[in-house]
Amino acid sequence: MKYSENSCSDINICYIGGGSQGWAWKLMSDLYLEESLSGTVRLYDIDSKSAETNAIIGNIISGYEEAKGHWTYKSVSTLEEGLSGADFVIISITPGTFKEMFSDVHTPEKYGIYQPVGDTTGPGGIFRALRTIPMYEEIANSIKRYAKDAWAINYTNPMSICVATLYAVFPEIKAFGCCHEVFGAQRLLLMALKEFEGIEETDRHNLNTNVLGINHFTWINEASYKTYDLMPIYDRLVKKYYKDGICDKITDVHFMSKNLVKFDLYRRYGIIAAAGDRHLAEFVPDYARDKKTIAQWGFNLTPVNWRIENKAMLAKLSREYANKEKKVPITASGEEGVRQIKALLGLKDIITNVNLPNHNQMDCDEGIVVETNALFTKNSVRPLTAGKLPDEVNLIMSVHMNNQKAILKAGLEKKKKLAFAAFLNDPLVKNISISNAKALFNEMFSNTRQYLTGFDSIPIR
Amino acid sequence: MKYSENSCSDINICYIGGGSQGWAWKLMSDLYLEESLSGTVRLYDIDSKSAETNAIIGNIISGYEEAKGHWTYKSVSTLEEGLSGADFVIISITPGTFKEMFSDVHTPEKYGIYQPVGDTTGPGGIFRALRTIPMYEEIANSIKRYAKDAWAINYTNPMSICVATLYAVFPEIKAFGCCHEVFGAQRLLLMALKEFEGIEETDRHNLNTNVLGINHFTWINEASYKTYDLMPIYDRLVKKYYKDGICDKITDVHFMSKNLVKFDLYRRYGIIAAAGDRHLAEFVPDYARDKKTIAQWGFNLTPVNWRIENKAMLAKLSREYANKEKKVPITASGEEGVRQIKALLGLKDIITNVNLPNHNQMDCDEGIVVETNALFTKNSVRPLTAGKLPDEVNLIMSVHMNNQKAILKAGLEKKKKLAFAAFLNDPLVKNISISNAKALFNEMFSNTRQYLTGFDSIPIR
Amino acid sequence: MKYSENSCSDINICYIGGGSQGWAWKLMSDLYLEESLSGTVRLYDIDSKSAETNAIIGNIISGYEEAKGHWTYKSVSTLEEGLSGADFVIISITPGTFKEMFSDVHTPEKYGIYQPVGDTTGPGGIFRALRTIPMYEEIANSIKRYAKDAWAINYTNPMSICVATLYAVFPEIKAFGCCHEVFGAQRLLLMALKEFEGIEETDRHNLNTNVLGINHFTWINEASYKTYDLMPIYDRLVKKYYKDGICDKITDVHFMSKNLVKFDLYRRYGIIAAAGDRHLAEFVPDYARDKKTIAQWGFNLTPVNWRIENKAMLAKLSREYANKEKKVPITASGEEGVRQIKALLGLKDIITNVNLPNHNQMDCDEGIVVETNALFTKNSVRPLTAGKLPDEVNLIMSVHMNNQKAILKAGLEKKKKLAFAAFLNDPLVKNISISNAKALFNEMFSNTRQYLTGFDSIPIR
Amino acid sequence: MKYSENSCSDINICYIGGGSQGWAWKLMSDLYLEESLSGTVRLYDIDSKSAETNAIIGNIISGYEEAKGHWTYKSVSTLEEGLSGADFVIISITPGTFKEMFSDVHTPEKYGIYQPVGDTTGPGGIFRALRTIPMYEEIANSIKRYAKDAWAINYTNPMSICVATLYAVFPEIKAFGCCHEVFGAQRLLLMALKEFEGIEETDRHNLNTNVLGINHFTWINEASYKTYDLMPIYDRLVKKYYKDGICDKITDVHFMSKNLVKFDLYRRYGIIAAAGDRHLAEFVPDYARDKKTIAQWGFNLTPVNWRIENKAMLAKLSREYANKEKKVPITASGEEGVRQIKALLGLKDIITNVNLPNHNQMDCDEGIVVETNALFTKNSVRPLTAGKLPDEVNLIMSVHMNNQKAILKAGLEKKKKLAFAAFLNDPLVKNISISNAKALFNEMFSNTRQYLTGFDSIPIR
Repeated sequence: MKYSENSCSDINICYIGGGSQGWAWKLMSDLYLEESLSGTVRLYDIDSKSAETNAIIGNIISGYEEAKGHWTYKSVSTLEEGLSGADFVIISITPGTFKEMFSDVHTPEKYGIYQPVGDTTGPGGIFRALRTIPMYEEIANSIKRYAKDAWAINYTNPMSICVATLYAVFPEIKAFGCCHEVFGAQRLLLMALKEFEGIEETDRHNLNTNVLGINHFTWINEASYKTYDLMPIYDRLVKKYYKDGICDKITDVHFMSKNLVKFDLYRRYGIIAAAGDRHLAEFVPDYARDKKTIAQWGFNLTPVNWRIENKAMLAKLSREYANKEKKVPITASGEEGVRQIKALLGLKDIITNVNLPNHNQMDCDEGIVVETNALFTKNSVRPLTAGKLPDEVNLIMSVHMNNQKAILKAGLEKKKKLAFAAFLNDPLVKNISISNAKALFNEMFSNTRQYLTGFDSIPIR
Repeated sequence: MKYSENSCSDINICYIGGGSQGWAWKLMSDLYLEESLSGTVRLYDIDSKSAETNAIIGNIISGYEEAKGHWTYKSVSTLEEGLSGADFVIISITPGTFKEMFSDVHTPEKYGIYQPVGDTTGPGGIFRALRTIPMYEEIANSIKRYAKDAWAINYTNPMSICVATLYAVFPEIKAFGCCHEVFGAQRLLLMALKEFEGIEETDRHNLNTNVLGINHFTWINEASYKTYDLMPIYDRLVKKYYKDGICDKITDVHFMSKNLVKFDLYRRYGIIAAAGDRHLAEFVPDYARDKKTIAQWGFNLTPVNWRIENKAMLAKLSREYANKEKKVPITASGEEGVRQIKALLGLKDIITNVNLPNHNQMDCDEGIVVETNALFTKNSVRPLTAGKLPDEVNLIMSVHMNNQKAILKAGLEKKKKLAFAAFLNDPLVKNISISNAKALFNEMFSNTRQYLTGFDSIPIR
Repeated sequence: MKYSENSCSDINICYIGGGSQGWAWKLMSDLYLEESLSGTVRLYDIDSKSAETNAIIGNIISGYEEAKGHWTYKSVSTLEEGLSGADFVIISITPGTFKEMFSDVHTPEKYGIYQPVGDTTGPGGIFRALRTIPMYEEIANSIKRYAKDAWAINYTNPMSICVATLYAVFPEIKAFGCCHEVFGAQRLLLMALKEFEGIEETDRHNLNTNVLGINHFTWINEASYKTYDLMPIYDRLVKKYYKDGICDKITDVHFMSKNLVKFDLYRRYGIIAAAGDRHLAEFVPDYARDKKTIAQWGFNLTPVNWRIENKAMLAKLSREYANKEKKVPITASGEEGVRQIKALLGLKDIITNVNLPNHNQMDCDEGIVVETNALFTKNSVRPLTAGKLPDEVNLIMSVHMNNQKAILKAGLEKKKKLAFAAFLNDPLVKNISISNAKALFNEMFSNTRQYLTGFDSIPIR
Repeated sequence: MKYSENSCSDINICYIGGGSQGWAWKLMSDLYLEESLSGTVRLYDIDSKSAETNAIIGNIISGYEEAKGHWTYKSVSTLEEGLSGADFVIISITPGTFKEMFSDVHTPEKYGIYQPVGDTTGPGGIFRALRTIPMYEEIANSIKRYAKDAWAINYTNPMSICVATLYAVFPEIKAFGCCHEVFGAQRLLLMALKEFEGIEETDRHNLNTNVLGINHFTWINEASYKTYDLMPIYDRLVKKYYKDGICDKITDVHFMSKNLVKFDLYRRYGIIAAAGDRHLAEFVPDYARDKKTIAQWGFNLTPVNWRIENKAMLAKLSREYANKEKKVPITASGEEGVRQIKALLGLKDIITNVNLPNHNQMDCDEGIVVETNALFTKNSVRPLTAGKLPDEVNLIMSVHMNNQKAILKAGLEKKKKLAFAAFLNDPLVKNISISNAKALFNEMFSNTRQYLTGFDSIPIR
């Protein structure tokens, strides 16, 4: 890297999962828009074809006349090649294929368990975790070997388990996990500010929100904007909309939500749930009890078939971009990655929410991956102490934190019985009988078998 | 008290709940059989009639020629009178009436929740706790005022909450809780010793068993008898009987069990569950899913009507004893109370399992009431460090430990929302929808209203 | 209070110790210079004369034409009058008189113990603590009663004990302690930046420094300025100046230092000690071993006689200001108080170092008052997690943290033996024999007797 | 091993340091006297000659007609040979030679630091620890490899560091440390019982004493004998003898003590110090300030020259025993080793004090080696929770516990600066100037250089 006044060049970024047609394109846009940074992005993907295509697209974008940031994109064929000399590592992979994702989401439905997303907790989240852990063991070992001083940013789900695995394997790693779910709650705060105080603020970075919890089950217990305390203003928002709901963002129907779950949780516990309703409903029993209940709460399940079709559409788009049949549209992603990189280079301090192993930020066991605010300065990420959740929320939170530890251990040490104990302990599984739970676990295990090396094959009886 | 060589006289015992026709009679028998102790037992009961009758019965027993221990029984009409000058306090009360107990046990059945006992955990245990807490606040304050140096032994359920309340109100109290549920597992160990090693040992006190957990959800993870490791011997017992079961004790049909739950838990987790199946089935989801499942697991629900009839029978017996129409039969109760008193007087050291607030005996939060072994010597009860439960058991245990804390706080500070959060967090309640859970909570609250002073009346919505 | 855009009026500040001729005048200057704030300052002092004079001076200043901030100053005669309705409370008192201060500083010299300041740790700090605790108990109770929602800022030493007492008496208090000692280390960083990188930065607020430790024994383990890592730059400063020293500020000779202790500590432990050498030398044995050693390390002892003379000079100045014989000079104090008040009102977020009971910011027992960075936003002070000190420093730090707890307990519960045990445990006392330690303790106790109500009079034998 | 009723044969014991002329002979006597045990003792020593001679002596003893226990003694030449198949491992070695021991004890005297023993704490204890750690790393690795299921009993000093090293290297080891220093305090309790209650009890095992602390700085805070509370009786003993002292045992002049330190500590803190005065004086500053003070407190320093002469005498005796010139005298050693072995075999449960890494037995950091009571049963050592020391004692104890951790880390990770920081933090070193402390450290380092492999050679400056 080379520093000059207020900028930095020759930065090396390694992107693991660099064939992505979602996060990778967002990164390209954000780098295009950022004038203080330049360098090389090395794209690594087990689907090397996608990485190559993305390198072409990246270079096309970077070559646009209006580009403020200038980057070279290269596809690489090994982690060694990608990581050696990297200053930053971005990890955003799909663990397994649509086949396993289908099992995650739809096999539990046969047993009456509905998961709007199925990638974080619940039966789907647990199996996704078990197959992701060995992949992250390899990534952590590679970073340790080839890029031990690099900062690593994770976007993959299940976020908590991914970050926990990185630190379990390489405790000195400089990694954190980054997720945009909190931003939705911040958008609602901006809407409330406008509606009840008449203040038009569009930049959520101007809010102060104290974030605490675990990824996708995150909360805001203090919020202010300049001299305004936002908590009573949010209270007014909830009072007005808790019956009919309100959308904070226009999006694809599968990701749409009316925030009814969020408002209901506020009414129950008095603090702001800060993740999408589809995620929240997987942590707290009963919102996703059955299809009728789901409809009442105004969110949708995301069928994996939709994901398959969407992927095909993106692949087509990808070819069109690479062939220059279509111009790549550039919009700021709203993600924090590039802001974080700037801050770590010393170009502008920020406070933002990240996922890190607990070392004092919350009152829970050391090492549990929690999501709280942190101060980013030159080569430093320092969490704030996040305070306490209400006792009522902690009763639910504890179950998920204990499960996080158990799943990590089960995955690292190949303990199938422990994995099943965590599975049984998951609130979404508690509704069904234990014999059904065993059958479901064994069926999902069998569906995902290919990625669960090291576990014994004896079914849970 | 007066000490002479190997004995102690002029001991003052205050029995709170002294009108009891169960535990009080057991104490009388055990004192009758113990030659090293003598003194006075003061019986206090809000049902003063019963206390008076028991005083008559006690003095009859103590007057029998064969009596080894000589005691005077008196009924007293206030806690002050009972406690002033007491060396030991025994607490064994019925919190509320059969009306509330009926609500505890049978109201949840309307919602499909079955509780074999309903006095420890589950909806019944929670409401029983909420109404017991203020009673124990009064008892603790009275002990603090009138008998601060006395040792207090609690027998009342919910054990953990009762002991926790005593310490919350009067942290310097010398109290512990005493329960016989572990003894059943010890009887099974003796049976295994006989069946597989041909050794006829009848005294469970000769076993070494490491006890850990919480009351009625207690475990044994190490067991030996002289040079024998009992764990592999128990393993053989389970292998032989896990299908058909085996009884460790002849008892009334409502309390009968084949130990099938206990054996199943051993097969799942590799350690010995040390409480009756009827209790265990309230802690671990699914054994009491429905009546059919309960029948399959070979235990029974205890209808409150049976308790009402039994009580009437005992009342009749009580009158016959007092009128000397019937001679009071004397048998050693098998309980630990009198052994513990002897040990606390310095007459014979023992190690036995007791309930105490955690201060290092287990790896859980300070103050949670846990059940572990303790060494009893002259004026001292010192817990052993109990080690760790398997991770799989800890996932279940944590939920109950967290609920214990929440219920105690809800009861002491009259926090209804927190009580409901703990209610929802209980594994037995997780099976039903949240709207049903609210309805059930509100109905039980209303049924128990009389004893829940200080809580607001607004139903959970 | 009234908010308008970017400013706040009708603020009520209560100043306890408001007769001060140091901190009070600094506050007046800073308020004069700050255009976004206005309101009333109520001055309370047991020396009511001084408070009255200061009210006159304050109103004179506030009336100057150039004043940006407009404030009314009033003297009040009771804490109730001062605190009722206060939004902010500033506490800056002198505990006791010069007589006790003389004992603190000079009595130990008879036994060969030299303390450059004598107000924080060492024999002087301990006795000052013991007599300050009851004063702070009264203040905390008054805040609880009359101004429970106000923010309280403490400037009095011993800082840690003062803040700890406030929280011990009123755990919900919104108080923090504020000290300028860290700023000296930040000035050295600015000097290094200029000398080795040629960058002229004058505002220490533009540095990022991670602060951790306890008041006056505080450390910086990470420091950066924009894209510069300041740790290697500080290393160069130390290498250049560790022999001859360098001053970071022109000041009275008694407060002068060459930073030789600070540089030596850096050479020993590799991190930056962030307090004046005179304070540091009281925490780490041997720098103040004897007068010759003190001279070698380039700092000075502050004789109490100087303080007495200085006080007389200030009293004279005070009269001249009040009589308008002299114009009050206005300069920015460099203190954080007014910046903190602005931040708490939501006018501008800051990160600054403050003293607060530990709740996760450091790896030490809950409740020990530590000094770390905190984020100040609207009505919120949220500490950052501060990370770990080197093991070598922790060995010394632990002794002082343990002593802090012991002295607080001794003072609150009037435990003389515990106070003496802490006294013996202090590194400055370890050099002398135990019989001398007893004699010194008893002599200092006797000198300070008037303020040590509640302690028994029996000398330590 | 073979079990028959109430006895066990074919036991394999490996004795590391088996050439010992102290502990080894004690073991031989105790085994001779114990009829329920028999088997083989394999003696390993780096001085193979001594081990061979001891094998001869052992077999002579075992062949005596009156021998109740029959054992075969063999010398072995490698740890592998000694450990393979071992059921028990006894470790009792001399770390280094008299040359290093001379440096431990006498080099500090040049700087005015007196250590009566010099093997536990203080400069001597620290350097002895640093050179013992690598030896124990080798032993722990060998046990892990060749005898992972064996129970290991350590007698070597510094006890805490030896036990800590075993667990640091092989966390699953079944090891504990065994020391007789507590027995002296128990003898005093028996003396008090006789003097003030007229009860002649000779067996200290009949006392109940709650032990807590760290090795050689151990305390008794509860003591009873049958129905007697011994604490007030000990109080009377102290009141009577604190001026003139009293001996609990006839012994060589160098080990003699009048218990004046012990009595003084009781008067200061109200609990019983349970180690010899010579050890206690190394933990608490000032008792060993100078030769005159030492004389006043009635204990003696042990010159290494005496140890050298004594060793020569023992070597001569050894040859005479082996040649049958002299008959080996048999007396019960009073040590706990053989009782512990019996208990671990399930032959008789005991409670005794042992050194183990803290896992809940005390309120200090996990892993610090503490000395508390433990229950020994079949294949199980389970510590009791030991409760709390008085705050005053904890202030001193913390320093030593922190130093234990620091020295262990310094020794395992070869951190010389950390070793010096712990050295400086030791109360015995606090009396001298830092430049003298550096000189002393460097001199002792140089004297012990041969055993301090892995450390850099640069002197502390």
